[in-house]
Amino acid sequence: MRVLILGGDGYLGWPTAMHLTTQGHEVAVADNYLRRRLCREEKVDFLNDVPDLDERAALWQLISGHRVAVHVGDLNEWDFVAEVFDKFRPQAIIHYAEQPAAPYSMLSRKTATLTLHNNLSVTANVIFAVREFCPDAHIVKLGTMGEYGTPNIDIEEGWLDVEHKGRRHKFLYPRQAGSLYHTTKIMDTDLLWFYVRTWGLRVTDLMQGPVYGLFTDETEKDEGLLPFFNYDEIFGTVLNRFVVQAVAGHPLTVYGKGGQTRGYLNIKDTLNCVRLSVENPAKNGELRIFNQFTETFSVNDLAAKVKDSGNKIGLKVDIQHVENPRLEAEAHYYNPCHTGLLDLGLSPHYLSEDVLVEMMEYVIKYKQQIKHDQIYRNVKWV
Amino acid sequence: MRVLILGGDGYLGWPTAMHLTTQGHEVAVADNYLRRRLCREEKVDFLNDVPDLDERAALWQLISGHRVAVHVGDLNEWDFVAEVFDKFRPQAIIHYAEQPAAPYSMLSRKTATLTLHNNLSVTANVIFAVREFCPDAHIVKLGTMGEYGTPNIDIEEGWLDVEHKGRRHKFLYPRQAGSLYHTTKIMDTDLLWFYVRTWGLRVTDLMQGPVYGLFTDETEKDEGLLPFFNYDEIFGTVLNRFVVQAVAGHPLTVYGKGGQTRGYLNIKDTLNCVRLSVENPAKNGELRIFNQFTETFSVNDLAAKVKDSGNKIGLKVDIQHVENPRLEAEAHYYNPCHTGLLDLGLSPHYLSEDVLVEMMEYVIKYKQQIKHDQIYRNVKWV
Repeated sequence: MRVLILGGDGYLGWPTAMHLTTQGHEVAVADNYLRRRLCREEKVDFLNDVPDLDERAALWQLISGHRVAVHVGDLNEWDFVAEVFDKFRPQAIIHYAEQPAAPYSMLSRKTATLTLHNNLSVTANVIFAVREFCPDAHIVKLGTMGEYGTPNIDIEEGWLDVEHKGRRHKFLYPRQAGSLYHTTKIMDTDLLWFYVRTWGLRVTDLMQGPVYGLFTDETEKDEGLLPFFNYDEIFGTVLNRFVVQAVAGHPLTVYGKGGQTRGYLNIKDTLNCVRLSVENPAKNGELRIFNQFTETFSVNDLAAKVKDSGNKIGLKVDIQHVENPRLEAEAHYYNPCHTGLLDLGLSPHYLSEDVLVEMMEYVIKYKQQIKHDQIYRNVKWV
Repeated sequence: MRVLILGGDGYLGWPTAMHLTTQGHEVAVADNYLRRRLCREEKVDFLNDVPDLDERAALWQLISGHRVAVHVGDLNEWDFVAEVFDKFRPQAIIHYAEQPAAPYSMLSRKTATLTLHNNLSVTANVIFAVREFCPDAHIVKLGTMGEYGTPNIDIEEGWLDVEHKGRRHKFLYPRQAGSLYHTTKIMDTDLLWFYVRTWGLRVTDLMQGPVYGLFTDETEKDEGLLPFFNYDEIFGTVLNRFVVQAVAGHPLTVYGKGGQTRGYLNIKDTLNCVRLSVENPAKNGELRIFNQFTETFSVNDLAAKVKDSGNKIGLKVDIQHVENPRLEAEAHYYNPCHTGLLDLGLSPHYLSEDVLVEMMEYVIKYKQQIKHDQIYRNVKWV
């Protein structure tokens, strides 16, 4: 299948690109290196050196024999979008091309505005490009479990049957998020769902939880193929940050009480979820929604696991409860469903000690490069 | 109270500005004449000649002695927004400054993109300006009943208590709209509700139905004070269009079966609803939602009323069911609540024969100016 990956330079975009080529798909990626620019502007570094897309594609071709076509440009620009879609005529589009960090979206008016405009514009351009160039193509959109927030009832998989005053209606599950970034993902869903109904687009919305890990069957073949790894407060996801903190001898920074519970998954499972979605597309006129995670943990659970695994390999790990910079419930009901991807054949990689030790051993190699002032800056939400 | 009206040149913006000055408020308006530009670009005319804001403000001051401060500029531009807010330090902001036409938003990629960017950018800028310059100011946002769509259960006033598997949660009432324009209003709600929770903003969201009429206590003092009156398919609302069609001898164009039911209100009631909201503000950290309409009618009901009133004054009026260019249910359950504004003291002006005859008599004066090719162009949604 011809698969176009938007945001192909990203933490998930690049590993997805390589993975799909090994499954026989013809893959093109597009990216404008926005994430790299924002990291430079905010003065945060990746733990590792990450070659650019052309270099990574050349390295991957050398190692695997598989080709990834690279398009560098801004998906906010219609001319670029039209050129890529017209040339490649994708059968599936994987849309990762968004400013992905909640804390970044809360830094200032400018970062909020960039997040809002970038995420909505790219999503709109994808919709218009599919309509114009490949109306039967399947859009696989990365949403987030954060769109649901933490309601006091079970989180169903995308939809909610409501009985009210003796009548019934099936609604898109009501969404209410905890950051501007997550709110833009709700808006993406609003937009996609409208055009699914109006134009009969076929869309899969993957409501993903926080992802951890670096190693996949493809990334582990060469360090130059690893995705970038942020350990700072702005762009780093929680488990990746805790692993770096453990290695650096910095106390694990648990925000507030640490009862915040979310669904997590291994980067390997992200690739499989996305591949399963591409290979089993939604129907025309269908918005198919999967909750994409494999296990739920509280932040306290994660900290305890990192501490235990760290201790196993001789690291001394402290846990510190710091003032919560975010506005969020620190103890709450959380019971999200997640059967759709299992039904498609997902075989999860759970968060084991082996997984944590493998991550720590990788980080230890780069220990001298960890910049301690990036670990904790107390970026406030409110 | 110092009240800033964004979109002060509009069909509702200008009458609201005059009305609030008569109630003792200090009023400033801001607008960039976007609506006028879009009408020129789409080659549709107002029925009447409408002076620009400076001219109208001068005329109103001459007639009433009341002053309206005029700021002409683009609320997408932060520098303009900051200047206006910094100078005026409003205590209430009435936000009408959006591309307001559903059919316009469905014309093309360009009109969709303009609608999306304009509506979201202005709303975001309003939020950031309030945060920076007047954090206690009350934002009165014009939403639309169209955000709810036509669910098979009662439409409550903004919120829905859901019982699910033995647990309960109160959600923002799930929204699902029928045009891109309406979808941008859903996104506005997402955005406002996020910042209400996060920053404690005070917001009233007025979920307004289609408005009809021209005459208010202020506009009727001089024809130069009347709001602009669109009768075309793109910018005209349904009852205003039917009145012009009746006068022009054009059959009333009912889309499809005509069972589409909505909540309507007289322009006089819009002004009172907005004034009541301003004078009885939401609390800090509150998103207060009112469903703003006074009566529900199907399109068939409206056509029958226009026909009857037309006949009374000697017009021959035919009703024609034309192919529906929109994607919408033509027969559906519709039972929306609307008690909030009545509780605040709203005294409705219902759609009587007198109201329709008054509108028709006005339109008859301009009969020679009606451009028949603008009445029906069959702008398709899909």
